[in-house]
Amino acid sequence: MKPTHIEHIGIAVTNLQEAIKYYEEVLGLTCYSIEEVADQKVKTAFFMLGQTKIELLESTDPEGPIGKFLEKKGAGIHHIAYAFDDVNAALTDAGQKGIALIDKTPRKGAEGLNIGFLHPKSTLGVLTEFCGK
Amino acid sequence: MKPTHIEHIGIAVTNLQEAIKYYEEVLGLTCYSIEEVADQKVKTAFFMLGQTKIELLESTDPEGPIGKFLEKKGAGIHHIAYAFDDVNAALTDAGQKGIALIDKTPRKGAEGLNIGFLHPKSTLGVLTEFCGK
Repeated sequence: MKPTHIEHIGIAVTNLQEAIKYYEEVLGLTCYSIEEVADQKVKTAFFMLGQTKIELLESTDPEGPIGKFLEKKGAGIHHIAYAFDDVNAALTDAGQKGIALIDKTPRKGAEGLNIGFLHPKSTLGVLTEFCGK
Repeated sequence: MKPTHIEHIGIAVTNLQEAIKYYEEVLGLTCYSIEEVADQKVKTAFFMLGQTKIELLESTDPEGPIGKFLEKKGAGIHHIAYAFDDVNAALTDAGQKGIALIDKTPRKGAEGLNIGFLHPKSTLGVLTEFCGK
């Protein structure tokens, strides 16, 4: 099952306002949305560039996934999200191919998208998200 | 200065053939090129997905940049490359904004593109490449 495009790249940052400033002033992008995802214990900022979004992730809880990532690895690229027309089918297909799934079925993520994560132990060290409408 | 799109995402892998198999069989992508970049001490494999390429990077020398990255951090996402119409101007602009540059002027990279890297200490932990024709 092939994704249609790279939906977004997730980047863990220590300070969202400082990071938005960098992406706007140095890379010339425009932040079009800031959203807190309570379930994931993050505050996110989105930028559109061609087909793909940059999603900045600031932790709202040291015990959340981004809090733990920042403590262990520091700020940097966190995950890649591939867009699929049918996220549920894509997750099922990956699972049938032996990939360890963090989410066996889609749940709601930022921007109201259906999302599911594959475990990096099965994806050559790359935390991988499948997402779509 | 704004990039036109995300040109590629660079991913460090320990075994290129194993990684190609994963990207083809699980993600449904097609490897269209394998290229050794002697200067960077890497062997690369490329996949196209919408506007953006996935560039897998296998080290050919433990002392090269990918060899050192793999030893320190293990396999995973290595860098993001932004496409610019004028890479030289984009590097100059970033330098004038106080960003530390690994390459002050473009050099030739994989696929014959002009490339230049920004230092992750200036880019919130994200190794960032500017590239273009």
